[in-house]
Amino acid sequence: MKTRRTQNLATIALACMVVFITIAAQGADPLSSWNDGPAKQAIVEFVKATTTQGSPQFVPIEERIATFDQDGTLWVEHPMYSQVMYGLERVPALVKAKPELAKVAPFSTVLEVLHGDRAAMEKLTMDDLMKILAATLTGMSVDEFSAEVKKWLAEAKDPRWKKPYTELTYLPMQEVLKYLRANGYKTYIVTGGGQDFVRVYAEQTYGVPPEQVVGTALGTKYGYEKDGKPFLTKEPKLVLNDNDAGKPEGIHLMIGRRPHIAFGNSTGDQQMLEYAKAGDGARLSLLVLHDDAEREYAYGPAHGLPDTKVGTFTQALYDEAKKNGWTVISMKNDWKVIFPFESK
Amino acid sequence: MKTRRTQNLATIALACMVVFITIAAQGADPLSSWNDGPAKQAIVEFVKATTTQGSPQFVPIEERIATFDQDGTLWVEHPMYSQVMYGLERVPALVKAKPELAKVAPFSTVLEVLHGDRAAMEKLTMDDLMKILAATLTGMSVDEFSAEVKKWLAEAKDPRWKKPYTELTYLPMQEVLKYLRANGYKTYIVTGGGQDFVRVYAEQTYGVPPEQVVGTALGTKYGYEKDGKPFLTKEPKLVLNDNDAGKPEGIHLMIGRRPHIAFGNSTGDQQMLEYAKAGDGARLSLLVLHDDAEREYAYGPAHGLPDTKVGTFTQALYDEAKKNGWTVISMKNDWKVIFPFESK
Repeated sequence: MKTRRTQNLATIALACMVVFITIAAQGADPLSSWNDGPAKQAIVEFVKATTTQGSPQFVPIEERIATFDQDGTLWVEHPMYSQVMYGLERVPALVKAKPELAKVAPFSTVLEVLHGDRAAMEKLTMDDLMKILAATLTGMSVDEFSAEVKKWLAEAKDPRWKKPYTELTYLPMQEVLKYLRANGYKTYIVTGGGQDFVRVYAEQTYGVPPEQVVGTALGTKYGYEKDGKPFLTKEPKLVLNDNDAGKPEGIHLMIGRRPHIAFGNSTGDQQMLEYAKAGDGARLSLLVLHDDAEREYAYGPAHGLPDTKVGTFTQALYDEAKKNGWTVISMKNDWKVIFPFESK
Repeated sequence: MKTRRTQNLATIALACMVVFITIAAQGADPLSSWNDGPAKQAIVEFVKATTTQGSPQFVPIEERIATFDQDGTLWVEHPMYSQVMYGLERVPALVKAKPELAKVAPFSTVLEVLHGDRAAMEKLTMDDLMKILAATLTGMSVDEFSAEVKKWLAEAKDPRWKKPYTELTYLPMQEVLKYLRANGYKTYIVTGGGQDFVRVYAEQTYGVPPEQVVGTALGTKYGYEKDGKPFLTKEPKLVLNDNDAGKPEGIHLMIGRRPHIAFGNSTGDQQMLEYAKAGDGARLSLLVLHDDAEREYAYGPAHGLPDTKVGTFTQALYDEAKKNGWTVISMKNDWKVIFPFESK
């Protein structure tokens, strides 16, 4: 057996990795969009404690798992989740294929909204939105769905900044993603949004590959085209509701390891943050607080901000953060800039 | 922004990787347990075609996904799947906790088997086995389950070789796993076996981390201990039946990319092999044929071998392999040695 040779190769690989990680660690400030303060300090100290050989809190590289909520944590979620916007904007195509839907609620209501009656939006309940998403997300092959989302993303614009949604990511969080990866962490998105939807752009937008996106997932059905070629169709069957308790359950299903560090911003992330924090050794849970009405939005009851349906942040969540030692990130105080396009 | 520095670091990392991969590629034969023949040749040519820069079939590193069935493809599945043996051997502990089960079939039948009446095994139907697995795999925390499987694996022995199950892996397939990884492939196990069961030993046994094990999965339920600490309980709710069409469906759910190379050995792998092979560009599907009665087992109708319930290999599957250009691996002819302990 080629034991000696294998050992040599392994040593070279390890040396390369150590050299690279050391250089990366000694480089310019990897969190340069963050103001000095308790949040930045907590992240830097956590990384040092878990990646320094000989540290009592050292975590082997294969166990370095980091999880990030998406909407409101990595990018803007107001005034409405971009995936819901996708669903609404797909309704005309749906109605074109099935004209009888034009007069049936909630599809008729959506058409009113899209024709300029923004107030009609208020009529849509959560159940309506689910009905619209089920109708617009299923009954097509997974490849067709990806192609349509890609096309929509290239054209759709956020109403306030008039920019593609994928440009409205938070630069400080992009820095955290890169910083953790440079220190051997595998970065996962764990989102209440649709797994197939987020996978379309996560690699290009966040450097997170499809297999590291955990999200609300519908089932698929394996079948054959006329020429015998197999394909998967998206089914209206919920396999994973990746919100609330569904987040740690989804993490167990898809990753099988408890994260050492987790980021969220709403009550839907509460259980993921609890679960991460409750593990052995060094664990860090962080909560993004939307308290910057000028540069982004301010919502949630902490600091007397009004609560909203999108990205609910209750006083109880804020109290739990304080009680359990989670780190609260103030967008207003902790972030020098919010968006990548600001710094250009 | 530190663009120049980031570019330099990226260049160093890339150079390290290229050096390592080049050295690895030029090393001693990575498939030294394989006889020269069409199967070995197909694997080596596939890797060259998909990893050589400039090759028309080159596959970018992030898309290099390889999937492996486990039972009968990576390790011995006869006379019975090891996970079923785990379930049977857990029955006495279950009966101790709930004595009323001792007189109720199928638990009473299992006790007869364990007391030496091997013939009683024949009485157990697939439904019985499912009932036993549901009773022995659920109702405990995921951490308790892992600890019990680990303990069982340390003690349990295969009846023929009198060795732990984890030593009965196929050396030629271990070489393929390493060879593909050395060439930038992410190796996944895609098994009909229990995801949580296989994750316990996959990293140590195959170098496959928990997040790269896709298997039949039950749901979990998030809850709190008395002291408020959160934990997950295994529930008797099927989330993914990772057999047959469930394999490509599970691959889409858990990985989100179509494999470029896939290995299986039974009808339960048929759809995964079809799905892998039907993708664009270079794709390779391989089928392990158990045709070595002396060194392992011979089963399946190809070459006139008898069919069995464990690892069903029908004539139709063999015909599909030939028709679709899958590569058939003959254990008898293609493998110099079967097990790692033989070569010591």
